[in-house]
Amino acid sequence: MSDRPGPEATARLTRWEQRTEVPLFVAGLLFLTGYAVRVLAPHDAQPWHDISLALVWSTWLLFLADYVTRLRLSGLRSRFPRVHWLDTAVLLLPLLRPLRMVQVYQAVQRRHDRPRLDLYARVMAYAGMTAVLLGFAASLAVYHLEHRAPGASIRTFGDAVWWACATLTTVGYGDATPVTFWGRVVAAGLMACGLALLGAVTGSFSSWLIQVFAREDEKRPPERG
Amino acid sequence: MSDRPGPEATARLTRWEQRTEVPLFVAGLLFLTGYAVRVLAPHDAQPWHDISLALVWSTWLLFLADYVTRLRLSGLRSRFPRVHWLDTAVLLLPLLRPLRMVQVYQAVQRRHDRPRLDLYARVMAYAGMTAVLLGFAASLAVYHLEHRAPGASIRTFGDAVWWACATLTTVGYGDATPVTFWGRVVAAGLMACGLALLGAVTGSFSSWLIQVFAREDEKRPPERG
Amino acid sequence: MSDRPGPEATARLTRWEQRTEVPLFVAGLLFLTGYAVRVLAPHDAQPWHDISLALVWSTWLLFLADYVTRLRLSGLRSRFPRVHWLDTAVLLLPLLRPLRMVQVYQAVQRRHDRPRLDLYARVMAYAGMTAVLLGFAASLAVYHLEHRAPGASIRTFGDAVWWACATLTTVGYGDATPVTFWGRVVAAGLMACGLALLGAVTGSFSSWLIQVFAREDEKRPPERG
Amino acid sequence: MSDRPGPEATARLTRWEQRTEVPLFVAGLLFLTGYAVRVLAPHDAQPWHDISLALVWSTWLLFLADYVTRLRLSGLRSRFPRVHWLDTAVLLLPLLRPLRMVQVYQAVQRRHDRPRLDLYARVMAYAGMTAVLLGFAASLAVYHLEHRAPGASIRTFGDAVWWACATLTTVGYGDATPVTFWGRVVAAGLMACGLALLGAVTGSFSSWLIQVFAREDEKRPPERG
Repeated sequence: MSDRPGPEATARLTRWEQRTEVPLFVAGLLFLTGYAVRVLAPHDAQPWHDISLALVWSTWLLFLADYVTRLRLSGLRSRFPRVHWLDTAVLLLPLLRPLRMVQVYQAVQRRHDRPRLDLYARVMAYAGMTAVLLGFAASLAVYHLEHRAPGASIRTFGDAVWWACATLTTVGYGDATPVTFWGRVVAAGLMACGLALLGAVTGSFSSWLIQVFAREDEKRPPERG
Repeated sequence: MSDRPGPEATARLTRWEQRTEVPLFVAGLLFLTGYAVRVLAPHDAQPWHDISLALVWSTWLLFLADYVTRLRLSGLRSRFPRVHWLDTAVLLLPLLRPLRMVQVYQAVQRRHDRPRLDLYARVMAYAGMTAVLLGFAASLAVYHLEHRAPGASIRTFGDAVWWACATLTTVGYGDATPVTFWGRVVAAGLMACGLALLGAVTGSFSSWLIQVFAREDEKRPPERG
Repeated sequence: MSDRPGPEATARLTRWEQRTEVPLFVAGLLFLTGYAVRVLAPHDAQPWHDISLALVWSTWLLFLADYVTRLRLSGLRSRFPRVHWLDTAVLLLPLLRPLRMVQVYQAVQRRHDRPRLDLYARVMAYAGMTAVLLGFAASLAVYHLEHRAPGASIRTFGDAVWWACATLTTVGYGDATPVTFWGRVVAAGLMACGLALLGAVTGSFSSWLIQVFAREDEKRPPERG
Repeated sequence: MSDRPGPEATARLTRWEQRTEVPLFVAGLLFLTGYAVRVLAPHDAQPWHDISLALVWSTWLLFLADYVTRLRLSGLRSRFPRVHWLDTAVLLLPLLRPLRMVQVYQAVQRRHDRPRLDLYARVMAYAGMTAVLLGFAASLAVYHLEHRAPGASIRTFGDAVWWACATLTTVGYGDATPVTFWGRVVAAGLMACGLALLGAVTGSFSSWLIQVFAREDEKRPPERG
């Protein structure tokens, strides 16, 4: 939040970020697709395995190149990882990339003159989409980590998606739960992020509904009897 | 949100919607009743089976007729399904019809001079009723899909209602959970809608309570000692 | 909300309610105590059984007398049960009496010159206390209904209290759940009320915390460097 | 809230509290470390056992000394435990010490000229950190109380942390739940505190997100077409 670089460096960095945001988001979706193919394809399906590996590594190298470019443009040197800690985390754990979606969203909005949606609808759309993408990434990771564990209750990808739905909405039936250490770490991360995101969806929906009902009162002539 | 038709088409559409909203809501209740009879009646009870089938199909044809009329009145042609996507979804999945209740509510309100209830009470009433109707529809669907599945924990309609209560409130005990693919799809839909609706109920109740306590302060003379 | 009686009837009714609110609340606590003794005492403990029966019936007769007096004072006759539907429900199901606590709270506040607590603290205190009382009443009722049912997981009063905690907070572990029809009806009621009340506690706490942190900013001199 | 002492006593007490807050917080962390070593070290590891016992008791004696000093400085005598009931509870149950973090936070803030974080970010940081510390303390206590109980599902410290995550976020899978009386008491406390704290995190995140999206609208030129 402090340790800000000079205005020129900031301007260069902003220009770079505006130009690369959407391509990087597409790369993020490709990364997720590659990881999904890697996890879901049968283990002896050689071509798919190679394609997925190529996708995952090439997109990750793209992320690394972007990170290094921004580190050099920013002029922050060794303080960059500390100041841009979310970017550093997203580089190391590319499955967290959906968390950067608010920037993508802003980059897309900038090209339109006005927002096409109401404030609350935008918050709902952003938080809901991020939650869905994070839930999908967590389903893949948990399926990957769990499906061969002894005593696992998440044995198919369908189970993993079902588990992610029940976790994100905090319903938590408990019929499918991770049992390995890393599966539980992923689950704890999903709970923390999902709770905040779903809270934002719920809060915005509630505010939007109250707004709709309040507006309706104003349209009505105040006294008619 | 964009792609709006001309003012005449909008006026004609609005008049049609105001006139048909309440009859369509009654048709929606009849559809739900028909579906309930279809699902809950014993399978060899011939008269009930026929009655329910007639109810379900005739009300659905009514929905189709309404949809086609609105498509033609709107002058939007092939863009209609995209612009009115919620209506299209409700036509294809009539069990989602409770989601249109806000329009019914407005149509009913329009005939009174002023709302009879406080803003927050209206939001609570609307969101709560929609949640109850959706929960009932989901109970029927899940009971239908699950009660003969091998290894099912939802075997009676009572179990399905109990499951819907625990899911809508996000308690999620896990003593009754869907095990089939389509049962879980219905459950995920109920979680997503229910979470938002119950969040609206909770948020409005909280705001209403704070308003009640704040108003009480104002009535009190500020300094008396 | 409408169908209000004349101003004289309202004044008489208000006076009666102000005078009887606190005694009736004490009677409500006695009722709860009597019911607790009835449910928790061993079944062959004759004196306790008689005392509890006497307490439950005498307090209920008090509630009935109050209801009849208010019905007559109000001048509403047969419309009274419809207008005062919450009071009617509370008469028939005295375990719901905690829901009337907001009136008790106001009656107590009226005797002090100013509220001793902050707005949000008052909402939290009211909603929290109501939730605790409702949870206790529901624990008693569920223990009563469940502890002898075949296949029950709620076998001791401790289990019932543990179940009520997990239900009110929507955690819902599922290690103790009602299995009988009436047990599940009580549980569904607790979920619905508890969700709204706990939402009020959470919402007020959140607003209070934001207020505390915002006030701290104001106390600080805006520019010092 | 009332029963306040004279202005001199208050000033002396405030000075004492400002000076001791940060050392006491460090002592609280040492207490937690000591308790963690005590609970997690193997039972025959003599040096660790002695070290942890020394840490726990010496830090607790520090808390006691602080409490007695404040009791004497305040000039409240026997009314002190009632007026400062949270401090009394924290003295008797030092695992609740994270609840005092708001004071530590204010003491740290006082040394900076301005807060370095946005209002909502501060509320999120405070509530989130308190929730994490309380969750860690509850994990230790529940592991301590449960891991040798017959029929326990929390057998390792990892299970206890997993249980605390699922409880704090109200997911509540139910694959790991306390079975002893005291374990359930700790769990109920965690549910109550965690619910309020996590509600504050969610509420602030939601408000912050709405603020971010609203600010973005303002930056945009209102009419460009």
